[in-house]
Amino acid sequence: MTDSEKIPDFVKGDFIVNRRDVTVEWGHCDPAGIVFHPRFIEYFDWACALLLEKATGFKKAQMREAYGFAGFPIVDLQAKFLVPVTYGDDVKIYSTIASLKRSSFGIKHCLTKNGAVAVECTQTRVWCVADPADPKKLKAAAVPDEVVARLKRRT
Amino acid sequence: MTDSEKIPDFVKGDFIVNRRDVTVEWGHCDPAGIVFHPRFIEYFDWACALLLEKATGFKKAQMREAYGFAGFPIVDLQAKFLVPVTYGDDVKIYSTIASLKRSSFGIKHCLTKNGAVAVECTQTRVWCVADPADPKKLKAAAVPDEVVARLKRRT
Amino acid sequence: MTDSEKIPDFVKGDFIVNRRDVTVEWGHCDPAGIVFHPRFIEYFDWACALLLEKATGFKKAQMREAYGFAGFPIVDLQAKFLVPVTYGDDVKIYSTIASLKRSSFGIKHCLTKNGAVAVECTQTRVWCVADPADPKKLKAAAVPDEVVARLKRRT
Amino acid sequence: MTDSEKIPDFVKGDFIVNRRDVTVEWGHCDPAGIVFHPRFIEYFDWACALLLEKATGFKKAQMREAYGFAGFPIVDLQAKFLVPVTYGDDVKIYSTIASLKRSSFGIKHCLTKNGAVAVECTQTRVWCVADPADPKKLKAAAVPDEVVARLKRRT
Repeated sequence: MTDSEKIPDFVKGDFIVNRRDVTVEWGHCDPAGIVFHPRFIEYFDWACALLLEKATGFKKAQMREAYGFAGFPIVDLQAKFLVPVTYGDDVKIYSTIASLKRSSFGIKHCLTKNGAVAVECTQTRVWCVADPADPKKLKAAAVPDEVVARLKRRT
Repeated sequence: MTDSEKIPDFVKGDFIVNRRDVTVEWGHCDPAGIVFHPRFIEYFDWACALLLEKATGFKKAQMREAYGFAGFPIVDLQAKFLVPVTYGDDVKIYSTIASLKRSSFGIKHCLTKNGAVAVECTQTRVWCVADPADPKKLKAAAVPDEVVARLKRRT
Repeated sequence: MTDSEKIPDFVKGDFIVNRRDVTVEWGHCDPAGIVFHPRFIEYFDWACALLLEKATGFKKAQMREAYGFAGFPIVDLQAKFLVPVTYGDDVKIYSTIASLKRSSFGIKHCLTKNGAVAVECTQTRVWCVADPADPKKLKAAAVPDEVVARLKRRT
Repeated sequence: MTDSEKIPDFVKGDFIVNRRDVTVEWGHCDPAGIVFHPRFIEYFDWACALLLEKATGFKKAQMREAYGFAGFPIVDLQAKFLVPVTYGDDVKIYSTIASLKRSSFGIKHCLTKNGAVAVECTQTRVWCVADPADPKKLKAAAVPDEVVARLKRRT
């Protein structure tokens, strides 16, 4: 991201912002010629992983080892679709932390097209580790302090 | 739907309810072994079309001809993920109208697994026709009275 | 399947045939209004699991336990696309065994629309178990005799 | 592409080669932790559009206008899956022309991971224009000479 780039208001705040550039593909669009909206939800799922990768310096697979965590399943999703997007469009997805609780966190995503906000999305996710009683199950755990610290903007 | 079947409270109201049965596929699940959540959003997209098909007796392609409409793009999406679902699970998706305005409508979906609510979702969609000024563009229009009437429960 | 139903020649042979009925969804189609072809490949992936489920009486998750197997990754895929298919189309997918080797097997799928063959596909898959040396890795193993026997047509 | 980069033998020949870099996403992988193979087929679909974009200098939507063409539906697909790929893997997809006929063309794709060939794929596609008798239908047409010329390697 260049300094001069305009960060959408939706993602401005106390946390770092990750930008992901995506070119919308033909197969992401439906017979109306616009993005089939579950594809946006896919974009935001990976954008969440990329924000955490940017913060921690670890890839998602490495995070699982570094923090002994087993995933961050989503429990709540909200999205607004404001401007249609079609194949070939180059869009930018800005992602940041919306809220931080002990074992859950909110992530906000803002997808822009030619500088205009096209989609806004907020996810709530739970930080999970493997359940000691049954390693196949997940159990909520505190977000590690190091991860919290790294998600904050360096001022 | 049999009379004795328990309709989830989330979709009870003044409107007809459609039930869609889905078996979760291997390819709908992620490396954690649970449904990749954008797939749920896909399930609900088609469940919306099926509710309207049930109400009107038309298939989606026929509705486009019968009502001169051009689609019902989504403008707002909200979902809660309560219980994990995995491949091979047989789930039921109950869909009904949440709200009706002149040119937009809300749809509620409730996905159950073994009788327990696993996912709840509400979509807001706009009833659109082709824009007379530019047939490639969509324009909001009033939901036809006939469609509104057919979405209501016959008492 | 009713006795009178015409099984496509492509899947006739010495093995049982599974039929999977699919209604093509809006979101499976692209801006040209026809099925985005990777979606057909998805249909066939699950159709493979359903053929094995029909043969063995086990669901895919149960098969993993019953046979200690860890999956049947695909190594070769071939498909012919003959007739366009669109949303709302009710199609049938017939699946059977194309070939059986010690640790791999071929599966043929034939997708029909109104009785006409629309897509033909052949997959080659390897029967795998967890590698004893590294349980995270897969290792080819002989297809169990019981599975082979159950895939054959009872005459 | 840098000069020193090793182009896989599979795509070497008389035609230009496009390279597309993809990071495999969490949601592209299945419960076995590897890419769900229809996702590879998706990658290759868009890789085909990118090869033509590179050759012609037009984006796909512009090609439709520049050449009056209406799409290049796939009629044949072949793929070999050689090495497993997982989320977070950075892969490269090299695409080139495999064959050129009057109104159809073959495209070869080679996906590499750390320099090793992981997936090879060949598609056959038909160059189509809108059918004058029914603009909703597609009709095969000759690949424009200009497109053919631009797909060839400049020596």
